[in-house]
Formats: sequence, structure tokens, C-alpha cells
Amino acid sequence: MADAPLVERFRASWDEIAPIGRDPGSGGYLRYAWTEPELRLREWFRRQAALRGLPVESDGNGNLFAWYAPAGADGPAVLLGSHFDSVPHGGGYDGPLGIVSALLALDEVRARGLDPRRPVGVAAFAEEEGSRFGVPCLGSRLLTGALDAERAAALTDRDGVTLAEAMGGRPAGARPELLARVGAFVELHIEQGRALVDLGAPVGVASGIWPHGRWRLDVTGEANHAGTTRMADRHDPMLTFAFAVLAANKEARLRDAHATVGRVLVEPNATNAIPALVRGWLDARAADAATLDGLVDAVRRRVDERAARDGTAVAWTAESVTPPVAFDGGLAGELGRLLGGGVPVLPTAAGHDAGVLSAHVPTAMLFVRNPTGVSHSPAEAATDADCAAGVAALADVLAELACRP
Amino acid sequence: MADAPLVERFRASWDEIAPIGRDPGSGGYLRYAWTEPELRLREWFRRQAALRGLPVESDGNGNLFAWYAPAGADGPAVLLGSHFDSVPHGGGYDGPLGIVSALLALDEVRARGLDPRRPVGVAAFAEEEGSRFGVPCLGSRLLTGALDAERAAALTDRDGVTLAEAMGGRPAGARPELLARVGAFVELHIEQGRALVDLGAPVGVASGIWPHGRWRLDVTGEANHAGTTRMADRHDPMLTFAFAVLAANKEARLRDAHATVGRVLVEPNATNAIPALVRGWLDARAADAATLDGLVDAVRRRVDERAARDGTAVAWTAESVTPPVAFDGGLAGELGRLLGGGVPVLPTAAGHDAGVLSAHVPTAMLFVRNPTGVSHSPAEAATDADCAAGVAALADVLAELACRP
Repeated sequence: MADAPLVERFRASWDEIAPIGRDPGSGGYLRYAWTEPELRLREWFRRQAALRGLPVESDGNGNLFAWYAPAGADGPAVLLGSHFDSVPHGGGYDGPLGIVSALLALDEVRARGLDPRRPVGVAAFAEEEGSRFGVPCLGSRLLTGALDAERAAALTDRDGVTLAEAMGGRPAGARPELLARVGAFVELHIEQGRALVDLGAPVGVASGIWPHGRWRLDVTGEANHAGTTRMADRHDPMLTFAFAVLAANKEARLRDAHATVGRVLVEPNATNAIPALVRGWLDARAADAATLDGLVDAVRRRVDERAARDGTAVAWTAESVTPPVAFDGGLAGELGRLLGGGVPVLPTAAGHDAGVLSAHVPTAMLFVRNPTGVSHSPAEAATDADCAAGVAALADVLAELACRP
Repeated sequence: MADAPLVERFRASWDEIAPIGRDPGSGGYLRYAWTEPELRLREWFRRQAALRGLPVESDGNGNLFAWYAPAGADGPAVLLGSHFDSVPHGGGYDGPLGIVSALLALDEVRARGLDPRRPVGVAAFAEEEGSRFGVPCLGSRLLTGALDAERAAALTDRDGVTLAEAMGGRPAGARPELLARVGAFVELHIEQGRALVDLGAPVGVASGIWPHGRWRLDVTGEANHAGTTRMADRHDPMLTFAFAVLAANKEARLRDAHATVGRVLVEPNATNAIPALVRGWLDARAADAATLDGLVDAVRRRVDERAARDGTAVAWTAESVTPPVAFDGGLAGELGRLLGGGVPVLPTAAGHDAGVLSAHVPTAMLFVRNPTGVSHSPAEAATDADCAAGVAALADVLAELACRP
């Protein structure tokens, strides 16, 4: 297999993991952190590492690192990798492509007869999507100390299971000595938009990540009978919530920003009852922090006004807010030169573990073309040829960063 | 106890059932049909019937009938009763008050030394709220044949349990011979509004039920990444749904009608994903059928237009539509005269088993004052004195209907 063309080697690896956690109804994936499908992917990762003779290190925060350190390799390591977990019914490439590509890129460098002078690591980060415990990039935030281990241990999933219970112990928290061993981190990821399609390029380099965050709005009113309560007597939180959805959409469009309300919880959620509570989550992102602040402020102001008219109350909670990330200029530029002058350099509005690590380690990202441009959906797609091009690009990057004198 | 004042006898009975199915967090009730709390209430009903020497008949549709037929009683029966089941976190009076009052009214008539010349029944109807299987007045609709038994057997609750599984067998369906034995049905119910409070009356008589219905709207769009998908590229069903909520509210206010969206289901319901599907339920009611039709038509037209702008698709399903009910003029008038000329006669916008039975049997309703006016909520309330006044009024009605020569 090692001699087969890269595209065939990619397909062979991909076929091993493609069935894991796939929902036959939607065709999407249910790979939440520390649930059975995600644990099977971790097993697969450990087996792949063993096949290559790589010891696997756990950082006590759910993140796994497979290390390749041949005799004589020394100095700051080059780390590649991404995450296994998915959003509900997400696509199969978002995350796992970066891990599979990292393993295959290391194979490719070794097959080229190159000898890394620095250790090479392949990372599998935990709970990047935040779909189970609500905090995206949970694993990398714990590793870097951006998330307090005590606070994280008490996070609960929708069934009331704590993170500590799911992990089988309290997270270790910040591991500065581990981070200090890493000289560069490169995450390859499926593109979550159509830029590379429009540019006709299979692979691109990231310039940075938009600032973004999640705000929870708890709209409380008065539960009452849907049939008998006069409209004038109501305190209906669903009205305030609906207004918030439309206001967020409008304010985002005015600013060329992004705003989404994709998750709702209603109590009691009965057809014939005016709700007591409607809880929504606003996901907002913009090209710069001032625009994001302006967007969220405008939505809050308009929703608070509307709540006064509806006789409801709104409580806002910033669940996570991530400042803008500019990836290391030197490293991104180096990747651009390395991959040929024409490789596109793009910003992204999606959060990534690379964004979290970039505060501590020179970091870069590669994107692989997604023909549909759709993400967090079963419609996410990639061709084997483009995936192989991604592996080849990552191998070129690895050869340069790890093998040059 | 039989000699104690009516208000004490009411309180003693009420204390027996008040704890059953009460959620200590909300103070509301979780008494869904054929779940443990509702089955305990049925047991309580059978025990109460046994204490009074009344045989209990099941109609094979989940409805129970306790019969009192002393020697010589003959002819069409007088049926009293209501339902045990609740909406999620509903009040404790909605339903059970009508059953407890029926048992106590029968006690009262017997304590007065009156001898019913006709059989008296006390009914406990199943799944009146439709909170478990989605069809309100399920038990009475099956009994009257308004709901097909085959179709009903396959209804599923939110956990996928079918009605047939919950009941432990297929429902029997229409029972015309049972209905033919009933000459009049009177349902006592907590008022679900503030009319009796405003009028300063503890008890009122119903004139009829507004036409009402439930429409499900399935808004489908395209699941995608909340961060990376440009606003212009979205097909976001949450926008269309939010518009529907606000349009329904506005169109109802324009018509002095009622419209509510109290239940929502979102897929995948993730903070960072534009939904693929937002399913909402519209509960709409109006004083007459033309107004209701006009309301629903206007909402549908506006939402369909909005969907075209959002790039989403909307499918509308009428899950249940109930025509207007005018309670038997003779019987309602008789109750009014019987209870004194000043007793208020009111319409209601809530559906009831009485509305279903009224197509087959002369039917009337009594309402008991609700100080908060709030319904389908833990804030629903009644004083013991008003409940005792309700029992006394029901006993007066029963004495007249069952005992007159």
C-alpha cells in the first residue's frame, strides 16, 4: 500500500473511518466527544500510531499526541492534526481529514526518504465543536490554560453528565511544558465555504480567523393557555425570541457579518401553552472585533426594546467569545511560498484549535476545497484527488519545517 | 366525613391527589396519559368508585366510567366528568377538578336523600390535552368515532411509543351503544381566563367553544456552518419560522382571535449550524369559523411569501381542526335557570371532551372561577370555597337532571 498512489492510500484510510458514527438516516455524523463513535476513532488513531511505531501521549485533557522522533531528531517539534468530533449530523471531513492527512503526510515524508531533524507530532484534539459540553475547542483551551480545569470539570452535557464523568476523571488543565516542546502547529481542514471553488484551487492557506462568539438569550414570560388567554394579556417569550432571530439576521447583513440562531429550547414546549421560557443561542462573527461588538450590541438593544413591549424579560450570557486570530505571518507566508506563489490565502469565520494554539505557538492552517461549500451538514464534500493534494501539500510543509537543517 | 361541610370534603379529596405527578421544581404537573402519575390517578378513581359501590366500566379507549344505578333507575343516564391528564407543567385543576367534583356531587345528591331515577355516570377521559400523542380529546374522539381507531393505534409519543403500546392493546374505537345510554353530559372545569373574576361570580355556564385547530409547519432549508456561510448564500428555516411566529401574532390581534406558537423542534439544533429543519406548531382559535379560516389563510400566505425570499420550503399540515361548538341551548339554558338567573353564560376558546361529546349527546359545561386567570401553568388557581360552590352547583344540576320525575 505504501507504494500505491497517494489518492489510493488516502481512500484506503478514509474507508476505515467513514462508517464510524454515520447516521444512516441523514448521512451525517454523530461523533460527540467521549461517545462510542468518537472513542472508536481514538482507538483507530492509537492503532494507526502503533502500526507506524509511534508512541501515543495523552495530555490529561482528552487530547492525544502520536510522536515520531527518530534518532537524532531534536529541538522544537512540528505538530500536525485536528479533531475527530462532529456537530450533530455534520459532515465526515470536518476534523478527521486533518488527522488522516497528518498521518499520511508523515508517511509521505518518510517514503520520500527524508529524515526529520525535529520530532513530528500528530494531534487529535477533543470536543472541538463544543457539541457535547457547549465550549468549542474544549481540548485545546484546556491544554493552553484558556479554560480553567475546575470550571471545565463541572460542564454538563444535555443528559446532565459532567465533563469529568465523561473523561473518567478531572481534566489536567494547562500543560505549558508540553506546549513548549512544539515549535509549529499546522492544521489541515476542509474548507467551510466556497472560496477555493470560486478560485479553482484544491488547497489554500489561512490568513486568520474572524472574531466570533456565542451568546445565550433566556427570554422568560408567563406560561398560559394558548386558547383562552387574550392576546393583550400575554407575556409570550416566543415573540421576543422570533424578533431576536430576525433582528440578528438584519444587523449581520448590514455589517457584512454573520449571525445565526441555530439552537432553541422551549419550556414547556407544548402546542397549547404559551411558553414560560424560550432560550436561544446567537452565534455571531465578523471580520474585526469592533464590527462584532457593534453587531451584538445592536441586536441586544433591539431585542431588549422588544421585550419591554412583549412584557417579557431577556437575560444575555456570553458563553464564549474568541478574539480575532492572525496566523503567524512568517509561517503562513512560508507555506504560501512553499506551495507555489499562486496558492490562495484566505481568512475564515470558523473557530479552530489552531486559533487557540496560535496564542502560544507559531500556527498555520491549510484548507482543502469543498465542492458544495456546505459545512456542518451531510452535504459537506471533498474529492479524493483534492484530499490527496492536501496530503501532498501538508507533506511538503512537513518536509520543509521538520527536515531542513 | 360525609357530614362535614362541603368545602372540607372537597379539601380532603383534593389532598389525596394533589401530590400525584407534581414537579417539585415548577410546582406544575406532569400527568401524561398512561404514564405512572396518570395511572395512579386512575387507581385512585377506581378506589373512589369502589368505596361508593360503583362498578367501573372501561370503554376500550382508555376512558373509565363509574356507574351509579340504584334499583329502579332507568332510561338515559346523566354523565358527569372530565380528564386526569395535564399539559407539561400544567395546573392541577385542569381536568381532575371535574372528576373530583362529579364524585362529590353524586355524594351530595345521595346525602340529600334524593333518589336518582336515571343512572348516573362519572367519566374519566383519556389524553384530553393531547400532550403525549398530539391529538387533543383523544379518548372522547375514539369513543365517538371522530378519530379512527386504526389511525390512532399508530400514533407515537416523543419516545416513539405507539398509542397501542401505551394502552396495552389497540383502541376499541366508536362505541355508539355506550353513547346511546347517555342522555346528558355535564363537564365541570376550572375557568381558563378571567371572565368570572371580572364578573365576581364563582361559577358560570358555557355557551359554546370557539372553533380551533393545530397546524404544523415544517420549514426546511439547508444545514450549513453558522460561521462560514455568507448571509446571501443561506437557506435558513429559522428565519421563516421566526417570521411565522410574528405574523401569526399580528394576524390574530387584527381579528380579536388567538394564535400561539408554543412548540418548536429544530434539527440539528446546534449553536454553530444553520438548521436543516425548523418545525413549529400553530395553535389558532377564533369566535367563528370564517374568522379562524381567514386568520390561518393570512398567516399561511405571508409565511409562504417569506419562505420564497428565504429560499426555504414550508409544508403545512392541519393536525386537528375542531368546528365551533354551541352547547345544547336547552340544557345550557336549563342550567342557567337552575343555578339562578344571575349565573354568567360564557363562551370558551379551549377545547374539551364536552365539545366532542356535544355532537352526540346534549352537553353542557360549568366553569369554576380561577383567580389568576392563568391556565396550562402552575399559576392556575382556585379557592376551596369556589370549588365547593362548583360541587354544589353540579349537585343541583344532577339532582334536577337525574332525579326529577
